[in-house]
Amino acid sequence: MGMPLIDHHCHGVTTGELDREAFELLATESDWPAPAGTSVFDSPFGITVRAECAPLLDLSRHASAPDYLARRAELGAQEVTSRLLKHTGISTYLVETGYRADEILGPDQLAAAAGARSEAVVRLESVGEQVAATGVTAGLYGDEVAAEVTRQLETAVGAKSIAAYRVGLDLDPARPTHVEVARAASEWLRPQARRLDHPVLIRHLLWTAIDAGKPIQLHTGHGDSDAVLHRSNPSLLTGFLQATRETGVPILLLHCYPYLREAGCLAQIYPHVYVDNGLGVNYTGPGATAVIRESMEMTPFSKLLFSSDAFGLPELYACGALLWRRGTAAVLNEWVAADAISSSDALRYAELIAHGNAERVYGL
Amino acid sequence: MGMPLIDHHCHGVTTGELDREAFELLATESDWPAPAGTSVFDSPFGITVRAECAPLLDLSRHASAPDYLARRAELGAQEVTSRLLKHTGISTYLVETGYRADEILGPDQLAAAAGARSEAVVRLESVGEQVAATGVTAGLYGDEVAAEVTRQLETAVGAKSIAAYRVGLDLDPARPTHVEVARAASEWLRPQARRLDHPVLIRHLLWTAIDAGKPIQLHTGHGDSDAVLHRSNPSLLTGFLQATRETGVPILLLHCYPYLREAGCLAQIYPHVYVDNGLGVNYTGPGATAVIRESMEMTPFSKLLFSSDAFGLPELYACGALLWRRGTAAVLNEWVAADAISSSDALRYAELIAHGNAERVYGL
Amino acid sequence: MGMPLIDHHCHGVTTGELDREAFELLATESDWPAPAGTSVFDSPFGITVRAECAPLLDLSRHASAPDYLARRAELGAQEVTSRLLKHTGISTYLVETGYRADEILGPDQLAAAAGARSEAVVRLESVGEQVAATGVTAGLYGDEVAAEVTRQLETAVGAKSIAAYRVGLDLDPARPTHVEVARAASEWLRPQARRLDHPVLIRHLLWTAIDAGKPIQLHTGHGDSDAVLHRSNPSLLTGFLQATRETGVPILLLHCYPYLREAGCLAQIYPHVYVDNGLGVNYTGPGATAVIRESMEMTPFSKLLFSSDAFGLPELYACGALLWRRGTAAVLNEWVAADAISSSDALRYAELIAHGNAERVYGL
Repeated sequence: MGMPLIDHHCHGVTTGELDREAFELLATESDWPAPAGTSVFDSPFGITVRAECAPLLDLSRHASAPDYLARRAELGAQEVTSRLLKHTGISTYLVETGYRADEILGPDQLAAAAGARSEAVVRLESVGEQVAATGVTAGLYGDEVAAEVTRQLETAVGAKSIAAYRVGLDLDPARPTHVEVARAASEWLRPQARRLDHPVLIRHLLWTAIDAGKPIQLHTGHGDSDAVLHRSNPSLLTGFLQATRETGVPILLLHCYPYLREAGCLAQIYPHVYVDNGLGVNYTGPGATAVIRESMEMTPFSKLLFSSDAFGLPELYACGALLWRRGTAAVLNEWVAADAISSSDALRYAELIAHGNAERVYGL
Repeated sequence: MGMPLIDHHCHGVTTGELDREAFELLATESDWPAPAGTSVFDSPFGITVRAECAPLLDLSRHASAPDYLARRAELGAQEVTSRLLKHTGISTYLVETGYRADEILGPDQLAAAAGARSEAVVRLESVGEQVAATGVTAGLYGDEVAAEVTRQLETAVGAKSIAAYRVGLDLDPARPTHVEVARAASEWLRPQARRLDHPVLIRHLLWTAIDAGKPIQLHTGHGDSDAVLHRSNPSLLTGFLQATRETGVPILLLHCYPYLREAGCLAQIYPHVYVDNGLGVNYTGPGATAVIRESMEMTPFSKLLFSSDAFGLPELYACGALLWRRGTAAVLNEWVAADAISSSDALRYAELIAHGNAERVYGL
Repeated sequence: MGMPLIDHHCHGVTTGELDREAFELLATESDWPAPAGTSVFDSPFGITVRAECAPLLDLSRHASAPDYLARRAELGAQEVTSRLLKHTGISTYLVETGYRADEILGPDQLAAAAGARSEAVVRLESVGEQVAATGVTAGLYGDEVAAEVTRQLETAVGAKSIAAYRVGLDLDPARPTHVEVARAASEWLRPQARRLDHPVLIRHLLWTAIDAGKPIQLHTGHGDSDAVLHRSNPSLLTGFLQATRETGVPILLLHCYPYLREAGCLAQIYPHVYVDNGLGVNYTGPGATAVIRESMEMTPFSKLLFSSDAFGLPELYACGALLWRRGTAAVLNEWVAADAISSSDALRYAELIAHGNAERVYGL
């Protein structure tokens, strides 16, 4: 399992030095500190950082939180980032650029730090917000957004939507009309547009991306406190998947935790649907193999992709890649040992999930 | 685990020779070909066919897709069907007769091909559509359907409903009145009835079957693109289960994937509710033991049944039976090894799940 | 794993002798006898009783149901209760007092029978019903309930709500106004209040408990036939968790089966949210380790608690404690063997889950 990985969905690494509070906030989906007397270092991801990243910083496995943070500060963020990223074996990073972009390394900087290649993924909701910030009128909003999405996608490999966060995946799957978009834009732009959470405009973004024809990543499942878990169940997208099937545009269901099985069912049925098991793998630490196992339960082997969903901490890249390699190998080796699959097929599927499927879907 | 099996829910085997495209379409719940460059043979079920069925056709384990299909064509469909069915150890097939009946072997033909016994299960929605096709008036529709359901159930062992596909399981559990049925029939029959998807008429069919008193199978969980997964969650049936508890009519929750645990909770609570783990077992291939394990997590051992849900491919029977035997044995043997259960109890429960529960519930 | 346990959610033990029918009804969440020819002793919990409790009553492992019940009757309920409770290693019982209190041992009696400590947990809905029974007017109902909740919580360690049973967890999270409470009370109290199931009054109870500031336990997931499973999904509480986060009042999600993962996601995000894996552990018997494993998948180790949720049968305490010890040890030992965690951390987390978290949250 030493093959190169394509991390088909991730964010940049934070640029600054991190104190304990800042580190802990980046090591969880929570937006608030752990309650008094407790620590994120005492969580499945926390113990994985202390077990797996500590040795890469010259500490012994299972270092304590204070020792880990002290050594991290001593080495400095740049050296830590470089060591951890180079250890991942990730050859290509597909970096979503639309979230807190000022705090993190962009795709080029990340590639330089990792000695790897990178490509950009456009966050659709950010494009809507960027266009709104130009002072566009409601009547022109729809066309301007479509033009800007198309323009940004020219140099990007795909689009990403956080519809799950903004309106829930139980959205109306229909393409909105021009009149509906103009009316919705007039509601949202007045008096001042901020966070794009208008259901019609979210749908407009999705269909604009469908028209642009590049792969679309959709957040599903567990995320931060801005999302409601059961409204992020990928099965809620069924209507949208039915409506877009004939377009052939690949839809990549991100994360999916704890709905890996639901996602696998969708990937079996809909030819344009793909499944990713990132995020859940990191946050379950030693339990990640069970998550990976579920993602391999029904999903066709040509439909599963690796990602880290890392944001901010290089530890999320390092642990995400390591846990994925270990878990995927564990499942496939078990199947080989039971003679349920040949070694050559197992290797072939590992290569597909590690990078082959991403190469095919994104045309890398 | 060599005991005879009762396959309490399956469909017939396709009668014709199959080219690669036709075979691949029958080896998945999808209604469309796999995307370019991919194949159903590279899926959990696909590798199971190549591992387990290939030797039954004189090939080595893990045969390639072209080799498998070439050998299949060489032997001919009849010989392949005969070899694969005889290997299942299924002694009795309960065959649902209402779906694409013209393309597949009926219960008698299937029994002959397998050297086994068969009984019929009536698809309720098909009866509604058959009655509609007679040109019945809306006012008479309800009584005619009731009479026809009763008549067909005289020679069948149970009924089956695909309410999950047609209206979702979040249906109103109440028995509709005569007036409601007549009004609904007038809506549905005009100008021309086709697919029965009127919620009142689906409820009418269910209650008609309750009156008839034979066991009722209900599709739940993963199915083809005609169903919406989260609307097929068996927990949505709770109101109907409460409303029918006193009738004593057995309700068999089919498939249940990925809602095996939800189904197990219902089977623990409601005395007339039973759980089946078919379909999920086939499509998860080497992961089937995890599915079986969940179905045995809370379900009383007197409430769990084997099925293949096979349609079209004899491979679905062969793999379904094999994976069930292997997975059920794995779970029970693990429990015996941990001294959590006696060997004699383990054997007794295996016999119940393999055939005893079906014999008791269907009165075979 | 011989450390003392705090059972942070349980009920009393039944006071009378039990015949087979009475025993079977207490050994399941069902409200009805098992169908003819079947027995609760042939369920995952039933085999666990016969395997694990039989030797404590001087029988061999895997005793038959008749032998077990005969020996139980021979020893008498008091001796059986004493033997089984003393074997649990539970040092403190937090006993919910509001359900069928006349049939079971109260906290003091339970403590005496077990040779342990006990504390009371107040069932909020019972307080509402108690206040209603005093003949209070609708206008005074809200204040009287608030006063009574406050009064009862003075000598209790926490509150418990069965909102899931009464209205479902998809409740409006907002605190109701005085006027809304008075109007709802006038609806519910007339002509005669019984079971408190008015959504506004349930919300009022929850917010009254928030004001009182002690930890609040909420039933989630599988329960008896009075609840609807999918409406007990803890994710449905997200709005209430967001609305109460700043109060700092701990919210303990009880049971959670089969939504352990959803609960773990909530516990990762919301600093005041805790997860318990009781009930599911008992009813899954030999499969309990999988349930425990899922509860440890994402939940921070400072957020997970042990409980038995035992009601009536001392067997539920004995098996709940034993299965928890065995399953938690299995998961942690596996992680230690894989060097994913240090032995000292594993021990530290086991102590937290066994009793440390409960001590901190309830201030014991």
